[in-house]
Amino acid sequence: MSGPSGRHFLQLPGPTNVPDRVLRAMDRALIDHRGPQFADLTRRILADLSWIFDASEHVFVFPSSASGCWEAALVNTLSPGDSVLAYENGFFAAGWSDVAERLGLRVERIQADWRRPAVASPIRERLASDRGIRAVLIVHNETSTGVTSPIAPVRAALDDLGHEALLMVDAVSSLGTTAYRHDGWGVDVTICGSQKGLMLPPGLGLCATSRRALDANRDAALPRAYWDWAEMRRCNRDGFFPSTPATSLLYGLAESLRMLREEGLESVFGRHARFAAATRAALDGWGLDNHCVDPAGYSNAATTVVGPEGVDVRRFLDEVLRRFDMSLGGGLGRLRGEVFRIGHLGDLNDLTLLGTLAGVEMGMRAVGADLRSGGVEAAMSHLLATTPAGMAPAKERSTT
Amino acid sequence: MSGPSGRHFLQLPGPTNVPDRVLRAMDRALIDHRGPQFADLTRRILADLSWIFDASEHVFVFPSSASGCWEAALVNTLSPGDSVLAYENGFFAAGWSDVAERLGLRVERIQADWRRPAVASPIRERLASDRGIRAVLIVHNETSTGVTSPIAPVRAALDDLGHEALLMVDAVSSLGTTAYRHDGWGVDVTICGSQKGLMLPPGLGLCATSRRALDANRDAALPRAYWDWAEMRRCNRDGFFPSTPATSLLYGLAESLRMLREEGLESVFGRHARFAAATRAALDGWGLDNHCVDPAGYSNAATTVVGPEGVDVRRFLDEVLRRFDMSLGGGLGRLRGEVFRIGHLGDLNDLTLLGTLAGVEMGMRAVGADLRSGGVEAAMSHLLATTPAGMAPAKERSTT
Amino acid sequence: MSGPSGRHFLQLPGPTNVPDRVLRAMDRALIDHRGPQFADLTRRILADLSWIFDASEHVFVFPSSASGCWEAALVNTLSPGDSVLAYENGFFAAGWSDVAERLGLRVERIQADWRRPAVASPIRERLASDRGIRAVLIVHNETSTGVTSPIAPVRAALDDLGHEALLMVDAVSSLGTTAYRHDGWGVDVTICGSQKGLMLPPGLGLCATSRRALDANRDAALPRAYWDWAEMRRCNRDGFFPSTPATSLLYGLAESLRMLREEGLESVFGRHARFAAATRAALDGWGLDNHCVDPAGYSNAATTVVGPEGVDVRRFLDEVLRRFDMSLGGGLGRLRGEVFRIGHLGDLNDLTLLGTLAGVEMGMRAVGADLRSGGVEAAMSHLLATTPAGMAPAKERSTT
Amino acid sequence: MSGPSGRHFLQLPGPTNVPDRVLRAMDRALIDHRGPQFADLTRRILADLSWIFDASEHVFVFPSSASGCWEAALVNTLSPGDSVLAYENGFFAAGWSDVAERLGLRVERIQADWRRPAVASPIRERLASDRGIRAVLIVHNETSTGVTSPIAPVRAALDDLGHEALLMVDAVSSLGTTAYRHDGWGVDVTICGSQKGLMLPPGLGLCATSRRALDANRDAALPRAYWDWAEMRRCNRDGFFPSTPATSLLYGLAESLRMLREEGLESVFGRHARFAAATRAALDGWGLDNHCVDPAGYSNAATTVVGPEGVDVRRFLDEVLRRFDMSLGGGLGRLRGEVFRIGHLGDLNDLTLLGTLAGVEMGMRAVGADLRSGGVEAAMSHLLATTPAGMAPAKERSTT
Repeated sequence: MSGPSGRHFLQLPGPTNVPDRVLRAMDRALIDHRGPQFADLTRRILADLSWIFDASEHVFVFPSSASGCWEAALVNTLSPGDSVLAYENGFFAAGWSDVAERLGLRVERIQADWRRPAVASPIRERLASDRGIRAVLIVHNETSTGVTSPIAPVRAALDDLGHEALLMVDAVSSLGTTAYRHDGWGVDVTICGSQKGLMLPPGLGLCATSRRALDANRDAALPRAYWDWAEMRRCNRDGFFPSTPATSLLYGLAESLRMLREEGLESVFGRHARFAAATRAALDGWGLDNHCVDPAGYSNAATTVVGPEGVDVRRFLDEVLRRFDMSLGGGLGRLRGEVFRIGHLGDLNDLTLLGTLAGVEMGMRAVGADLRSGGVEAAMSHLLATTPAGMAPAKERSTT
Repeated sequence: MSGPSGRHFLQLPGPTNVPDRVLRAMDRALIDHRGPQFADLTRRILADLSWIFDASEHVFVFPSSASGCWEAALVNTLSPGDSVLAYENGFFAAGWSDVAERLGLRVERIQADWRRPAVASPIRERLASDRGIRAVLIVHNETSTGVTSPIAPVRAALDDLGHEALLMVDAVSSLGTTAYRHDGWGVDVTICGSQKGLMLPPGLGLCATSRRALDANRDAALPRAYWDWAEMRRCNRDGFFPSTPATSLLYGLAESLRMLREEGLESVFGRHARFAAATRAALDGWGLDNHCVDPAGYSNAATTVVGPEGVDVRRFLDEVLRRFDMSLGGGLGRLRGEVFRIGHLGDLNDLTLLGTLAGVEMGMRAVGADLRSGGVEAAMSHLLATTPAGMAPAKERSTT
Repeated sequence: MSGPSGRHFLQLPGPTNVPDRVLRAMDRALIDHRGPQFADLTRRILADLSWIFDASEHVFVFPSSASGCWEAALVNTLSPGDSVLAYENGFFAAGWSDVAERLGLRVERIQADWRRPAVASPIRERLASDRGIRAVLIVHNETSTGVTSPIAPVRAALDDLGHEALLMVDAVSSLGTTAYRHDGWGVDVTICGSQKGLMLPPGLGLCATSRRALDANRDAALPRAYWDWAEMRRCNRDGFFPSTPATSLLYGLAESLRMLREEGLESVFGRHARFAAATRAALDGWGLDNHCVDPAGYSNAATTVVGPEGVDVRRFLDEVLRRFDMSLGGGLGRLRGEVFRIGHLGDLNDLTLLGTLAGVEMGMRAVGADLRSGGVEAAMSHLLATTPAGMAPAKERSTT
Repeated sequence: MSGPSGRHFLQLPGPTNVPDRVLRAMDRALIDHRGPQFADLTRRILADLSWIFDASEHVFVFPSSASGCWEAALVNTLSPGDSVLAYENGFFAAGWSDVAERLGLRVERIQADWRRPAVASPIRERLASDRGIRAVLIVHNETSTGVTSPIAPVRAALDDLGHEALLMVDAVSSLGTTAYRHDGWGVDVTICGSQKGLMLPPGLGLCATSRRALDANRDAALPRAYWDWAEMRRCNRDGFFPSTPATSLLYGLAESLRMLREEGLESVFGRHARFAAATRAALDGWGLDNHCVDPAGYSNAATTVVGPEGVDVRRFLDEVLRRFDMSLGGGLGRLRGEVFRIGHLGDLNDLTLLGTLAGVEMGMRAVGADLRSGGVEAAMSHLLATTPAGMAPAKERSTT
């Protein structure tokens, strides 16, 4: 490892690096969660969340992990025994299905290729043959596989069939990294968490809703208390929460949303796409395989790399941590030991990415991988060729 | 109000003031929640939680509000339609009952006096007449009323009857402020949150368990996913969590537990008791009434004050905020507009308490209350007479 | 003492409490002290310093204590053997004279009453009889005595006599606490430091200058290098410094000046005057004597209290620290053991002041002083009667 | 530039990156600079400074830049008109000579090669021919040239001649980066600052002394007040300072010294040497020239690179800042526009260094330099081949 000096490289697909502005915003005394200043904070956050989700209906914020909002989405809209259709092309998609089952829903799983983006046709077929399906669950960016799936075709399938099922999307690692349109794509519930593109510590779960999802809430019979939308919506109207909210994380959320607004979403998505492309250029340079085999599915947030022949991926990850003080993501579920994941989302820049890729190359060599050299050079070439023109370092200025 | 200068006085019964040591501990870069350093952090926290709860079985930590753990306690141990007996002597006790009902349990409520500590006899009676009751729910310190209830007699009632019901206790505002013995009192599930005596921001819910509670978990049929103990216990064994934990709050928790260990629990409880007594001395000096009418129930954490005749309590709270930059607690539920609450728990000292009491006196005068003078003087006398001997300011030294 | 809990009460006449906004502004990564962002920072700070000093000519910022700028003022404007006239009515005034002597100047000291503000007549007399005096040194607010002296009459004396001497003023504890007009009063060099009304940690010395002071700089023959104005002025023009500046303190300075601008100087001075008056009301209530015997000289920044008969002041200070975790100022120089000093400047509010005064009263009782009760009550009455109307807590809002 | 995301790469030869542990240690409320807690802090810092300088006599700490201590060293030991011999092989060496002249000393300058380490022979010659020289001034590591000079031969020359001159050394960028032995090499005054190997923000100047330097202090007739050692030594004995010390920087200094102790100086110097070697490997790979032409003088702290033919170095620096959010050092004095400087000292690790070198390569290409590729690869090879064995990431653990 690189010794006791310098900053750890946290290049997971999340949690991501928290910008100092956000850490400092959280490092503040608490306020009364029932006072006027808190109400202002809540209103500002809810307005900015509407903007970033493209969601005109209510967005809910829970003190919870993102997966808590998988549960919130289901218990607020469905009844015991309801059928849901889950498109499973990754570890987190499967996790959501499991939650649905544990809550007493009937889950029909479409087992799909983990190396490709979702295709709408099998969804369309099942929906056509089963009018009783109450919800379709799909993951926008699978953090385990580094594959992004299109959502609009699923909506189109529902619309074409005139099917009543709610469309529920996990956007945990896509919000703030990849263009996402909750209203624009006709999504009914979008789930997110704080620790990916929003650049916060974990601890907040988010649900964006539609009018139809809120209507479904009235009849949904799954038991619920903590996750109940109705009570939270009532309290939020005045700027408050039914139970004590996670004040310091909300301070941070207000700041991270302000940063994203300052930068502009086009620029945010553009830099994620650029870092993802530079990472793939490095893979090509080294001769390593992207786990995602369809360019249409390449993820802005993370690249999942197939461990090369003869390399013990877990040992590779250990060596990268021990020698170079960097955390990369390991393979999850059936991919354990098969792949590793490079997070390139959130708060990082060209030189951090290049340091990351250098760590990957050295780590591979440390475990004896027969890598071509030239990966880092290729990433440099890509970054140099695509430097955005005419920009000045804006972030620091605004904080001085 | 006192103008834009100085620190806000946050004298709620919680959230409480977060010590700078804890804020600074949270103001740190994130680490890999699946890495070895995280495992160390988890193990240290769990060991310290065992100590502070006096709980030899597993303590669970959720990213949630404390009330989330009301739900966790129930869904992990009970089945649909099970009967629970709830002792209701305050707003939060009633809230827990509501949660139980929403989750599909049959809730038998003992409506008790909100101004006195719980008495075991009605609990004993109901238990004697209904062997099918599966759990008894009771609040140790009712944050809404400033009344602390004894838990041991409830255990004794269960034991005397040989009754199988689980004993579940809300210790949200007593842990870290008042002697609490999870094992010692034979409690099966104790619920707590981060933002009271643990001096953290809100965002963590805690459940201490017993062997019987963990056994009940195996057969409990209430649907659960997020709150499931079994999976968390499995993951915790290696130092990890089933979903992404709230890392920065865990950093803070490790630090606050370290501070409490440094001070020693006897000293912690002693200073809470001393501040509570000084506050009551001020009430006597002013001629204001404590909402709690039984000295055996006086709370270490907060004192609930009956609004004097002719005073608009809500206007009083507004004036205290506007003029003196202090947040006090208002009345909750049926006490709305009737009482206000002075929090004297967590991170404060003699002079902060006296500033607080001075703010109460001035606020009362500002709304025309006919108060005797002398409340602050009485509190000073109490504090002066009870200054702990021979101590040196330890806290700062340890951090320099 | 009050135990290991809560915040230390730092009620010195300086260093003062640093607002969290300022601490957090300093808690930031460094930037290149020769880069464009630094130049922006320098320019903004210099503009805001002009505003707060009321100084149209250059203001110099040194990494140094305030007393370093006593030296900077002298070595930049005078030559070996030059005569200066020093008005000595306190410990810091005497300290400045000592510095002048050590630097090779001839110092004529007017030994004046430490309990009263300066009077211009003896200055006028000496100036009239000695045309060769090159500078008059006077302290605006003597931090050791809690006495504020008028500056305008000294300027008038110089003007009436057509005397060429430079007027140099120590405004270390008055800037940001008391109306101060560098240009308006015709001051040639004003000296200040960061740790009083500017609410920063110590480490920055400041010199505001006049055209005549800058002209004198050209011929001044005292040796100088570190303190040299000419080189700093040249560098400052481009936003830089001749040697590495104290970046983090400059971050803090930018923030504290922003806070003072947000509040407005009238309001800043008003709240200091109000806290000083409340403190004096407490003294009257207790029957303690103000060291300053002329109401015209009462200080906005600090009140120096005569130790009552039979009280060991040093033991009093020790007990206040040990029992109540509060630091008050002790007597300096000839006042050692005779007085103590209550700082009421910088970042504090009504309730902090009342906590402070309560600590004074309890500390006095702890050492057996025969105090009348009623001091804290009197301060409360004053504060309640003088609450500024119609203001809302502005500070926090701007940071959320 | 790399956009508004991620951390600025501050790869100057100083100020260096401040570790979060140090920033957080500074982000604390102030304490009484005349109280017992402060005395403890002072004593601990002075003891740790003795250790890091290898200096058994007093070490002085001033609120000042490092160059302030050039002045402190001179005014405390010399008298007007005294002769000093200055070895000038760089911009900062020349700056120190200028200070000496401005203070009224006669300065004999040995104009030496800026691309090579100092050689003792010309010093020996001048000393032999002039017994009246009172001090020899030399820079250990010239931050402007990236050249480290040996100090022991200079001491040997003095000893061989039995010459009385004091040996004064600027170790501003070597302390904490390169083995330095104040006592071991017989140095009389060593000067340092806070913002290089000590990893603090700028704002503290340091002087380590010898018995002979302290003796010289008694007769030294240069005027002094702020910089006076005698008074500071007196105050330091009790743990205090003659003027208000820069408390928050002292908090940081205590923490950075603790970190250096935890790591051990051998390890600290080893990682600096390793990063310097990796940087030189990159230069070789690119075909760029090190400004230092003698391997014996290669600096652990910074590498000065000769701008390649046809490259506008200033434009290169601007592009690196604008495109890649990195600050490198420019050429100073006669090297302006000729060289640039890569800082590899203080708080950084392998991947940060590789990101830095990648930025250099891309910046060079951005301004059209005809660089060989392979510099970053060469640095990776060096780092991989020299990874310290058997170490675990220690830093983070100790702070959790």
